[in-house]
Amino acid sequence: MTEMQKMGQKAKLASRILAVAGKQKKTALLAIADALVSNKSRIIAQNDIDIKNGRENGLTQSLLDRLKLTDERIEGMAQGVRKVADFDDPVGQVITGRVAQNGMEIKKIRVPMGVIGIIFEARPNVTSDAAALCLMAGNAVILRGGKEAINSNTVIADIMRDAIEAVGLPADCIQLVKDTTRQSSVELMCLSEYLDVLIPRGGAGLIKAVVENSKVPVIETGVGNCHAVIDKDADLEMAVNIINNGKTQRPSVCNALETVLVHKAVAKEVLPRLKEKLDEHNVEIHGCSKTKEILGNFVIDAQEYDWENEYLDYKIAIKVVDTLDDAIEHIRKYSTGHSEVIVTNNYEAQRKFTSQVDSAAVYVNASTRFTDGGEFGMGAEIGISTQKLHARGPMGLTELTSMKYIISGDGQIR
Amino acid sequence: MTEMQKMGQKAKLASRILAVAGKQKKTALLAIADALVSNKSRIIAQNDIDIKNGRENGLTQSLLDRLKLTDERIEGMAQGVRKVADFDDPVGQVITGRVAQNGMEIKKIRVPMGVIGIIFEARPNVTSDAAALCLMAGNAVILRGGKEAINSNTVIADIMRDAIEAVGLPADCIQLVKDTTRQSSVELMCLSEYLDVLIPRGGAGLIKAVVENSKVPVIETGVGNCHAVIDKDADLEMAVNIINNGKTQRPSVCNALETVLVHKAVAKEVLPRLKEKLDEHNVEIHGCSKTKEILGNFVIDAQEYDWENEYLDYKIAIKVVDTLDDAIEHIRKYSTGHSEVIVTNNYEAQRKFTSQVDSAAVYVNASTRFTDGGEFGMGAEIGISTQKLHARGPMGLTELTSMKYIISGDGQIR
Repeated sequence: MTEMQKMGQKAKLASRILAVAGKQKKTALLAIADALVSNKSRIIAQNDIDIKNGRENGLTQSLLDRLKLTDERIEGMAQGVRKVADFDDPVGQVITGRVAQNGMEIKKIRVPMGVIGIIFEARPNVTSDAAALCLMAGNAVILRGGKEAINSNTVIADIMRDAIEAVGLPADCIQLVKDTTRQSSVELMCLSEYLDVLIPRGGAGLIKAVVENSKVPVIETGVGNCHAVIDKDADLEMAVNIINNGKTQRPSVCNALETVLVHKAVAKEVLPRLKEKLDEHNVEIHGCSKTKEILGNFVIDAQEYDWENEYLDYKIAIKVVDTLDDAIEHIRKYSTGHSEVIVTNNYEAQRKFTSQVDSAAVYVNASTRFTDGGEFGMGAEIGISTQKLHARGPMGLTELTSMKYIISGDGQIR
Repeated sequence: MTEMQKMGQKAKLASRILAVAGKQKKTALLAIADALVSNKSRIIAQNDIDIKNGRENGLTQSLLDRLKLTDERIEGMAQGVRKVADFDDPVGQVITGRVAQNGMEIKKIRVPMGVIGIIFEARPNVTSDAAALCLMAGNAVILRGGKEAINSNTVIADIMRDAIEAVGLPADCIQLVKDTTRQSSVELMCLSEYLDVLIPRGGAGLIKAVVENSKVPVIETGVGNCHAVIDKDADLEMAVNIINNGKTQRPSVCNALETVLVHKAVAKEVLPRLKEKLDEHNVEIHGCSKTKEILGNFVIDAQEYDWENEYLDYKIAIKVVDTLDDAIEHIRKYSTGHSEVIVTNNYEAQRKFTSQVDSAAVYVNASTRFTDGGEFGMGAEIGISTQKLHARGPMGLTELTSMKYIISGDGQIR
């Protein structure tokens, strides 16, 4: 038995206890939050090592920023865990229930998934976030973080394990894979015997690798090549505000806007106004030939790359389209199925857009930046699913559960 | 582009029309049902070829029986399709809806999956069953049946395609893979670009191969190593009836009983009564040493094989256990997560069993034979999911859908 299989086995055993732990889960989460706060200096000492190693290994400043833990960030992590502890327990909720004609009661209830694997990249705060959500949904979790954060992740996981053990739950409800070589990811993706689901959290490359190679069922998260359509019947000021917000409020996240498709009937009027607004943030514009005609030569000629990829940066792609159908066709071709918005006051246009655009979140007259577990009322989220199986859109506690049927009879046979 | 990729592309295009087809889907299904009936002789002529080939290739009588189509069976297929046409359309149903504090309306609605692949074995009636369910849920389907039924499947698919085209839907909503070599299954499992989900229907070998090799998300169906526990506080007559029903009413199906775990406190009393009942159907008993002690030497010594496998036959495995915990532990070790039953009048025992046994359907005092879409009020089913992601237990129309969020605002930004 490999080390990874041993971890899987321990997780499975722990998950059985956790599945029926009830209110003990809340106690455990509060203990974790307290322990994170009271061990701040211990965490920061380990984080310093990661930061030092990161500098030596030439990590970019933005990666170092994401890696860095401060008193305030650790308080934030603890606060996040406390928030999860406050949620209603999803386990045991009755989803549907009925009495069959033969008198059997048939109930469908929520149960934990069992064991969840999470593969994630540089941010050490994911360690406590993900563990808290999995634990509250009654699941044991195996965390596999990136090598850049291994010292931070290890101390955070140790603190969490001690905390839950102190309140009487198995420490193995939370395990961290210490081996951060590629091999450990591969082993985790093959752990079908013990793992019920695997969730990758990170960049497009990581997610693609996991989706393509995992033998364990995967929930695909996150890549968001999001589009905004300015319809011919749009309120143009609203369009400019929504696009500016989608692009510039936080360009590095998956629900940020990447491409604007503007109806030719309003392109001449709205594009200069949009440019003016985007200029405040020095947004680089990549456009089609018509966009260039309207806005001038500083527009960079958009290539296939520009339609296909997330910039996650102060860059935007703009295309003038002849019809709404052309806009929808463009989205079908290039969208990753995350979030898209139409700005329109036309009933038929919104109806067509919302029924024909096949993405997790389809907006009319509101910013794509709202695709988020918190904004959608789920409290916290473990990621945004861009696949169609099991969960689509922001995934909260409910999406970390499965269900089962319980049938109670008094001797019914067929 | 391979033939399979072309099929995928055609299916994707057809699925977009089907996704917004609304009540036309019902018209199409009724047309399919009529066409099946009016083309009975054409279907039977092709089925005769399959039967002839099957005989020559040495198919067993039971396989030939499953392959055989008669006037009555074709009427049954048409009736099945009409039943599906009568269901409420799952597409567009609002699952949840709320108004956020900023005034945005956030609705979560049901949408089709898109394109569904189904790999199935000998029964040609699956062709119409599966196509009808997929179509009613708004999905294009690519069917890949076994080579034994290729002539029957081809004519049935052709008839269905003509019928839906005649009512104005694309024929490519239903496609059949004509190549029945292993290669075509492999290609289907790699068709991630076009296929949203792949559902294998058939024996344990087929399902295992698909689950292990598919790059497309899979819903695992069907293998049922089902257990009955006779608790010390059981109504013994009820236990005998439930086990007899589970084993003998239709032994070849996935919800049939395979193993009995009997508490030592009642074993001596109940096992002879159970044997007497099972003897009426000449059920072969494989038992542990204690079972043999009680029932005598004709009991075949149970091996690991007997606990691990579905007999799907007039055979049963029996084990005497010391405690309910031992019974639950046995189920954890050997169950495929399909259906299990406890017979008991003890409150604590049923509570422990229903909370700790992690299977799709957990019964108290009723036959496992009820795990079925029809019995659970779903009308029809495409299979029984034994995995935890997306669907668990019988899968009807709802389980063939995904969801999306539609957010309607009046200019909200973050």
